[in-house]
Amino acid sequence: MKKKVIFDTDPGIDDAMAILFAQASGKIDLLGITTVFGNATIENATRNALYLKQRFSIPAIVCKGAKDPLIIPAGEPTTFVHGQNGLGDIELPDSLSVNADPRIACDFIIETVRNHPSEVTIVAVGRLTNLALAIQKAPDIIALVKEVVVMGGAFGHNGHTGNVSPYAEANIIGDPHAADLVFTQQWPVTVVGLDVTQQSIMNDAYIQKLKEQSDVYGDFIYQISHFYSNFHKQSVGLDGFYVHDSSAVAYVLAPELFKIQQGPIRVVCEGPAMGMTLCKTLEKAFPVDGWQDKPSQQVCIDVDSQGLLDLYFNILRN
Amino acid sequence: MKKKVIFDTDPGIDDAMAILFAQASGKIDLLGITTVFGNATIENATRNALYLKQRFSIPAIVCKGAKDPLIIPAGEPTTFVHGQNGLGDIELPDSLSVNADPRIACDFIIETVRNHPSEVTIVAVGRLTNLALAIQKAPDIIALVKEVVVMGGAFGHNGHTGNVSPYAEANIIGDPHAADLVFTQQWPVTVVGLDVTQQSIMNDAYIQKLKEQSDVYGDFIYQISHFYSNFHKQSVGLDGFYVHDSSAVAYVLAPELFKIQQGPIRVVCEGPAMGMTLCKTLEKAFPVDGWQDKPSQQVCIDVDSQGLLDLYFNILRN
Ligand SMILES: [Ca+2]
Ligand SMILES: [Ca+2]
Repeated sequence: MKKKVIFDTDPGIDDAMAILFAQASGKIDLLGITTVFGNATIENATRNALYLKQRFSIPAIVCKGAKDPLIIPAGEPTTFVHGQNGLGDIELPDSLSVNADPRIACDFIIETVRNHPSEVTIVAVGRLTNLALAIQKAPDIIALVKEVVVMGGAFGHNGHTGNVSPYAEANIIGDPHAADLVFTQQWPVTVVGLDVTQQSIMNDAYIQKLKEQSDVYGDFIYQISHFYSNFHKQSVGLDGFYVHDSSAVAYVLAPELFKIQQGPIRVVCEGPAMGMTLCKTLEKAFPVDGWQDKPSQQVCIDVDSQGLLDLYFNILRN
Repeated sequence: MKKKVIFDTDPGIDDAMAILFAQASGKIDLLGITTVFGNATIENATRNALYLKQRFSIPAIVCKGAKDPLIIPAGEPTTFVHGQNGLGDIELPDSLSVNADPRIACDFIIETVRNHPSEVTIVAVGRLTNLALAIQKAPDIIALVKEVVVMGGAFGHNGHTGNVSPYAEANIIGDPHAADLVFTQQWPVTVVGLDVTQQSIMNDAYIQKLKEQSDVYGDFIYQISHFYSNFHKQSVGLDGFYVHDSSAVAYVLAPELFKIQQGPIRVVCEGPAMGMTLCKTLEKAFPVDGWQDKPSQQVCIDVDSQGLLDLYFNILRN
């Protein structure tokens, strides 16, 4: 039986690679792709999701979501990481033959979760704004969602503390209030942060081999990832790039690849550490404790990165 | 040549023990004791400083300082740690024969630093409000202070992340804005936080031995520390108590006891992690970086605790 998934995303190069990973796995019933601002403007992110739907015949409904954060001012899309068009500036058609659903993302999430109680896994690999809006609009869905898997944050494991700032990861600093809201609800959240995503690297040889062995996806991934790989080369001197969003899909397909830590999670929402994620693992009581009455969640603190890279390769090779 | 020191403090049991440590060392010229709210009300903290001055013939000027934080609302004094009177509820005389200086603490700090350019070490073992007020009123003193030694904060070393909240230490959460201001100025700051202060423990046997071997100070320390020791026993199941404020004095007397890490320091000023101290040690550049233009400071990350306990004992034994 396939897992019913809503994929909330800001495609985004690694988002696109993660969507193809989910689609090619044959183990995920992709009910919908909901878009959010971040790696690209909301218009480009939605256009890119629709382009993927058309080009790779993905049956999922595509819904346009939030164009800016809950409370903090909107930032610029990270075009220096994902290109002006969000897909590494590959050539895109002027018009598409598929359209977005008329519902906004948060309404689609609410309706879909209500229609499939206890069956829907939400995989969120962008700012968590759509999920936060859905919670605020329909708190009843909190008890109806099967699981929330988030790519975001950094908890200091394996030396990874942040990428946008010294203590914050892009998806969380992009809407810290939304993230704090999502992490502190009474639903099961697993966070796949930099602690694990920066442990897995797809290098040039890996992408080259994928190009040669995946008829359907290889060339597309090769084309879009060029820009992404260049960014990594220039900013952190890496041969290849970190596996961010696909690590969240890998958790859905093969949770055994990850080592987990449990504890309530809060997010710093202002100041120089804005976007910092903190998971309290101590049992100790404190006079002041903003974690105390929050549900325990799961944080991925280590990963079998070779296993993850093999899983991605074998699924995409088809 | 003795080190000229202004001791900024909220006595407080461990503050009193630290003042006696400085006084008994013979290596510190205690120019002034400036008081601040925290372990006790400003009235009790000042009365306690004056009581110590009278009882132990300490020549230092005593100045009353801030009664509440820069921006956040005033909290209650931590009487559950230090007793109603701030000195473990020992009997105190109704009146004293010594008086506070008419100047407020920040004015005394400003004048004293200007009168002894490049000679004054400020040892601050309470909320950093007086120092922040002095900086705001007379920024010229920043270049004139020799060194600032702060007891406060927690940087996660040796597993120590906080005592008031999971991620914050009392002196910093008590006035986070003051702390962030003090840490980010162009003067040399060394922070002696829970990372090291919770590594040194004075147990019952130690205090008993001090009572027997220190004619001048032993019985007083025995009397006041009873309440403090009981608090530690009940809250963290410790035999004895952590050496907080005296660790800052130990750093002044014997810096070689400590292992140091360098980097700019910022403080989280709101939300559940309010009071968290973060020292950036990475050289890496980030798109968003509130540490980037701040001076590098020193954080004590480890301590020779037996050496510290011996130093305190040998000095107090006299
Ligand atoms: Ca993404
Ligand atoms: Ca103190």
